[in-house]
Amino acid sequence: MPGLVLVPAHIGELSGAVTFDGVPTDEQLAEVAFYVPRYLGSADTLRVMARMPRLQVCQLLMAGYEHALPFLPAGVTLCNAAGVHDASTAELAVALTLARLRGIDDFARAMPEGAWIHGARDALADRRVVVVGAGGVGQAIRRRLEPFEVDVTMVGRTAREGVVAVEDLATLLPTSEVVIMAVPLSPQTHRLVDDAFLAALPDGALVVNVARGAVADTDAILRHAGRLNFALDVTDPEPLPSGHPLWHAPGVLISPHVGGNTTAFLPRARRLLAEQIERFAAGRPLSNVVVEAPAP
Amino acid sequence: MPGLVLVPAHIGELSGAVTFDGVPTDEQLAEVAFYVPRYLGSADTLRVMARMPRLQVCQLLMAGYEHALPFLPAGVTLCNAAGVHDASTAELAVALTLARLRGIDDFARAMPEGAWIHGARDALADRRVVVVGAGGVGQAIRRRLEPFEVDVTMVGRTAREGVVAVEDLATLLPTSEVVIMAVPLSPQTHRLVDDAFLAALPDGALVVNVARGAVADTDAILRHAGRLNFALDVTDPEPLPSGHPLWHAPGVLISPHVGGNTTAFLPRARRLLAEQIERFAAGRPLSNVVVEAPAP
Repeated sequence: MPGLVLVPAHIGELSGAVTFDGVPTDEQLAEVAFYVPRYLGSADTLRVMARMPRLQVCQLLMAGYEHALPFLPAGVTLCNAAGVHDASTAELAVALTLARLRGIDDFARAMPEGAWIHGARDALADRRVVVVGAGGVGQAIRRRLEPFEVDVTMVGRTAREGVVAVEDLATLLPTSEVVIMAVPLSPQTHRLVDDAFLAALPDGALVVNVARGAVADTDAILRHAGRLNFALDVTDPEPLPSGHPLWHAPGVLISPHVGGNTTAFLPRARRLLAEQIERFAAGRPLSNVVVEAPAP
Repeated sequence: MPGLVLVPAHIGELSGAVTFDGVPTDEQLAEVAFYVPRYLGSADTLRVMARMPRLQVCQLLMAGYEHALPFLPAGVTLCNAAGVHDASTAELAVALTLARLRGIDDFARAMPEGAWIHGARDALADRRVVVVGAGGVGQAIRRRLEPFEVDVTMVGRTAREGVVAVEDLATLLPTSEVVIMAVPLSPQTHRLVDDAFLAALPDGALVVNVARGAVADTDAILRHAGRLNFALDVTDPEPLPSGHPLWHAPGVLISPHVGGNTTAFLPRARRLLAEQIERFAAGRPLSNVVVEAPAP
């Protein structure tokens, strides 16, 4: 018997699991072996692991896991939810790309005054698109872009079949018309979109960021806004303060970090948890392991 | 020798054709056998056909051709440009769908005041989508929707493999979450989206119109706006007057009939014209014939 599986109530009932709302009871804390902290919960939802003497696995509901490391008890395996947000985030990347190219943000802002601002626009069709980040989100973006009659180039950490190495990105930029950032934040990707990156892009190019705000240099964006277009789901700082000049920069569309928080989350989260709980109960290896507990 | 081929200057040079800017010269009028009126030109660009004694073919640059019929001289073949606008229009249909579902219009309107309006939204993923119109634009929409992890049902005039007959549309509406209108305007489709159609849709459903404004009843849209969402590239009347209540109706996104007027037009128009001119020069049957001249 592998022990109690504890899942937050917002996920709903799952076979083999017990749900908790708010904080687990003392009895649950004493017994829990597989723990799922609630989605977008506070640090307290991680700190409580110190009170779980029988804990073996912590399963997160997001791809990022660095925030959980300081709270992970020794000997506990940490799993992330890479994949759960791919559909929602990739969909937003395509939505932002299309909205800015076709001017839907301009049309929306002109509606209160009833302005019919007809005119020619760029189509996504025929554009040369570069997706920086060839992981789950990047590949989900590529699949969604493909039927739009575009030319898509994937860029990843290392060159492989269908993927150009990030070292060679500079050679692609002068002919790129749309660049979509879908990389994890790391020392290598921190401010990857800097002044030199933007200066290399042709006039009118569009930069889309659904990664993390710090992947781009906000001052550089402000310098190139107008000559270039931007569609940003993430900003640096975040949330963007109401007086920040980025809100008013020409050619910039901002969505308030809504890549993952959609109806697509729950069914995909439930699917992952059901699989993981089944593996755990059967003593089979878990997927999405990001910190492996040392063998006992 | 089949005669002079006359193409408007905005299309650029084409092998086997002569370009004209503004109006053709008297000499060109006397000789022209294959005539392409300029895109989005006035009625004068059609009226001038009365002064073309050797005209055999009029090749339009749009799918709609009813406006040209009154000006078509007897014995002249009329061809439309069905297909040329499919990519651009289908792309806009997906753009409007994604923008309204994910709230990009709301975000754009909140930008001037610097409002970070984070919150959960509907994803396109998992939605039940119905595309009404199974012609070129409808099929181009279907292809673009497929990788978004959606359930797409096509509705056309007659039932066939992969297409539900429009008579059965009423049975689909109660479970449809997104309905995209991509039908030609005809007596059968005039005000197809009426009060009964909208009343049959579940709360929160989204209706997208990239067909013609008169495919929907504007008064019915106004009655259901708020309970339902709308994303409309075409309106009735059009252009929508600045004081019209549709501009301010809740849950309504309007783009100013920009389905076709994009960078996607020119390469696709040139491709069609090059093929048609080659067929004409070789005496082979033309494609896209909508009015066949009687055999001589």
